[in-house]
Amino acid sequence: MKRALAEALGTFVLVFGGVGAAVIAGDRIGFLGVAFAFGLSLLAMAYAVGPVSGCHINPAVTLGLLARGKIELSEAARYWIAQIAGAIVAAALLLVIVKGKAGGYDAGEAGFGANGYGDHSPGGYPWGSAFAIEVVLTGFLVFTVLAATDRIASVAFAGIPIGLVLVLIHLVGIPVDNTSVNPARSIGPALFVGGWALEQLWLFIVAPLVGALLAAGLHALLFSSEVAVAPEESAVAAG
Amino acid sequence: MKRALAEALGTFVLVFGGVGAAVIAGDRIGFLGVAFAFGLSLLAMAYAVGPVSGCHINPAVTLGLLARGKIELSEAARYWIAQIAGAIVAAALLLVIVKGKAGGYDAGEAGFGANGYGDHSPGGYPWGSAFAIEVVLTGFLVFTVLAATDRIASVAFAGIPIGLVLVLIHLVGIPVDNTSVNPARSIGPALFVGGWALEQLWLFIVAPLVGALLAAGLHALLFSSEVAVAPEESAVAAG
Amino acid sequence: MKRALAEALGTFVLVFGGVGAAVIAGDRIGFLGVAFAFGLSLLAMAYAVGPVSGCHINPAVTLGLLARGKIELSEAARYWIAQIAGAIVAAALLLVIVKGKAGGYDAGEAGFGANGYGDHSPGGYPWGSAFAIEVVLTGFLVFTVLAATDRIASVAFAGIPIGLVLVLIHLVGIPVDNTSVNPARSIGPALFVGGWALEQLWLFIVAPLVGALLAAGLHALLFSSEVAVAPEESAVAAG
Amino acid sequence: MKRALAEALGTFVLVFGGVGAAVIAGDRIGFLGVAFAFGLSLLAMAYAVGPVSGCHINPAVTLGLLARGKIELSEAARYWIAQIAGAIVAAALLLVIVKGKAGGYDAGEAGFGANGYGDHSPGGYPWGSAFAIEVVLTGFLVFTVLAATDRIASVAFAGIPIGLVLVLIHLVGIPVDNTSVNPARSIGPALFVGGWALEQLWLFIVAPLVGALLAAGLHALLFSSEVAVAPEESAVAAG
Repeated sequence: MKRALAEALGTFVLVFGGVGAAVIAGDRIGFLGVAFAFGLSLLAMAYAVGPVSGCHINPAVTLGLLARGKIELSEAARYWIAQIAGAIVAAALLLVIVKGKAGGYDAGEAGFGANGYGDHSPGGYPWGSAFAIEVVLTGFLVFTVLAATDRIASVAFAGIPIGLVLVLIHLVGIPVDNTSVNPARSIGPALFVGGWALEQLWLFIVAPLVGALLAAGLHALLFSSEVAVAPEESAVAAG
Repeated sequence: MKRALAEALGTFVLVFGGVGAAVIAGDRIGFLGVAFAFGLSLLAMAYAVGPVSGCHINPAVTLGLLARGKIELSEAARYWIAQIAGAIVAAALLLVIVKGKAGGYDAGEAGFGANGYGDHSPGGYPWGSAFAIEVVLTGFLVFTVLAATDRIASVAFAGIPIGLVLVLIHLVGIPVDNTSVNPARSIGPALFVGGWALEQLWLFIVAPLVGALLAAGLHALLFSSEVAVAPEESAVAAG
Repeated sequence: MKRALAEALGTFVLVFGGVGAAVIAGDRIGFLGVAFAFGLSLLAMAYAVGPVSGCHINPAVTLGLLARGKIELSEAARYWIAQIAGAIVAAALLLVIVKGKAGGYDAGEAGFGANGYGDHSPGGYPWGSAFAIEVVLTGFLVFTVLAATDRIASVAFAGIPIGLVLVLIHLVGIPVDNTSVNPARSIGPALFVGGWALEQLWLFIVAPLVGALLAAGLHALLFSSEVAVAPEESAVAAG
Repeated sequence: MKRALAEALGTFVLVFGGVGAAVIAGDRIGFLGVAFAFGLSLLAMAYAVGPVSGCHINPAVTLGLLARGKIELSEAARYWIAQIAGAIVAAALLLVIVKGKAGGYDAGEAGFGANGYGDHSPGGYPWGSAFAIEVVLTGFLVFTVLAATDRIASVAFAGIPIGLVLVLIHLVGIPVDNTSVNPARSIGPALFVGGWALEQLWLFIVAPLVGALLAAGLHALLFSSEVAVAPEESAVAAG
């Protein structure tokens, strides 16, 4: 129960922080600032709720860990519900705050940081490009989570590469589809935008989950039970 | 006494660094640069004065630790006085420096990095939005401080997420009210701006303190005396 | 075999991340954002594939380690092949994704993040300037890798300075030649740009390798078998 | 001898990296990018040459350590010579590279990243403002170096706050005088700019040294031989 609460809280911070920066400050801090907002939210939560729940705060990460046998299905299901709940509460609270702004705010018209492709892609990318990039970029995230927390790695450091790879992921992906790599992050704003955002939501659930499974497969290939290199022999050993 | 001096010094650095970057360089480095200035000040001080005083350098953080029983009231009171003193000295020195600028500098007219809502919100946000966002964002900071320094966490790492969550907080909040989350940071410049800044100052004292208490409550829920997950079982263990 | 796969995967992430950010988002995140994309890719991979292969993901780094006797020639050759393969696959996949964009994308015309000098230098720098800066900047990278992973250093920290020195390197070098310091990173996009990019490719293979050998020489001078200062005596000891 | 070579090399990287980013890329990466270039150079070198020489790479830092009895005068003198030599070589090599640029480059006309006040301050600040801010900001750097490497601190982490406080310092100070806080960094470019840069150079030698002595005094006050708080009792313990 505490773990689920930690996941809800962490996902709340990630969505309020990342989507909040995009919605409130996006025209001032640019895509670079939004990328840092998402990544630093995750980095901070890795050290804050990580000790309680492992800080997945992302259904795709939970699926990756499930595929590698690091979490049980019943617990994964609780994590998923908590993550989606945290994301929805964050989006709702954010909307209340921005609606107060002089001139008001219309989530449907302004986009509210929802993910989208085609007519709703910032850079005019079609669904195929969005699908491919979500698979690849979610793979980066989930592989980094799995590898940096493997028993041959320096686990206490893991929050740093995991948070910063999410900065990287947003630096690449925002022009394509505002970057999801996290179905909970996509569901939150989409519920309040409605219409096209809900119609396109499937992609931002399916593609990240596919990417997570791919990453789990790659991790299984590279990090079998036998350690390939003892950490102290590794040139840039993280372990 | 040393601890109070450390708090005064640390808050001096935070206010001179964060507000200084906004006042001196804000038009060149943008909100993104100002956000990094606040967060990196805190990160640096966490490793510099942290070993002496714990590096609260923020009355809301001290309240959060008081609520969790990690500091005594008499010491907390000394910390609060030291923090406010450090912030005022930083603002005074900063003003002397910028007044030398070609064309001079009028704190009242230019704003001097003071926090404000309504007509004084960069993005036109009313007091209600400012109050809500200060509660939420101070909650992020104080929860991160409490959780990342908990005995189940990797304490030596704590300065990194604590500093970087303050970057995130400013990435989200500057357009609403220039971001406080720290009554001392708000008091410093407001004294020199006067007028509206002093009239609005109550919000930037009350809302961060409310946020700190909320964060302390959440921390109590998640980090009771029984450890929920042993660090080594946690997927992204910070401990 | 696992090590080679890890190198291919890591180089894939570096090229997809760094070149991808430049190609997809460069006009939105600027050279600053592209610099962070390259550096944070390397930082993340240092903690993800580092425990398996050492995370060279750069033929020049592998040469530097070979020159210092930290890897055998037969393994270095496998690393080089894997790095180049990973870079080519990353560039190919990136091209497929950006070709979907509204209005299409022509790698030859747009440059596709390929390295270039003279007419193809963003800031109009000739081949001599590009050669010199590639030698110097690759020296920074390879020296940092060698020194920060030396037995007198704090090896678990190494991914942080190594990733962040690559941010620095790109902050300096992008206007000169888009910054290589990594022959694999240069080969990937050049194959799809063709023409001038292939004609100029020699420089981005030769100069980084020269820089790597220089760095190996400097490392040999400074880090002989006798430890100069015991880590605990060092003022800013990384060890 | 090795230590002096390490100092020369580290200062070379700092000046080539920081001033190089300003000169080559300043109009593209802005003051924010230049600030990161200086700070990340120092962070990387802290982990690369730190284990050999302590990575002062700044005469003011060496003075601060001398004042606290952490280095002997004869060694400090060797460090100073090495630092200044490294800075001059870096500036010379940088000038050769940028002179190749289409349209050429005139250091005297373009400024070449030299520090200046009055007519040569980017924001029109007089010598008094520049002197004051150099004292304060050098104090931030030297205090962070002294405190984060104190025996009650987590020394292996020190490179992170030390590098990042230099980012902060540049975020605040560039509009005032291009930011020195390091006499060697100021001497390098000034020699090639000549004229006004040499006439104003005194300030960027004297003020940082004053700041270093102030920081040493503060450190002596806060970090006496008796440990004020055991690291494990500290709320945000860096130790």
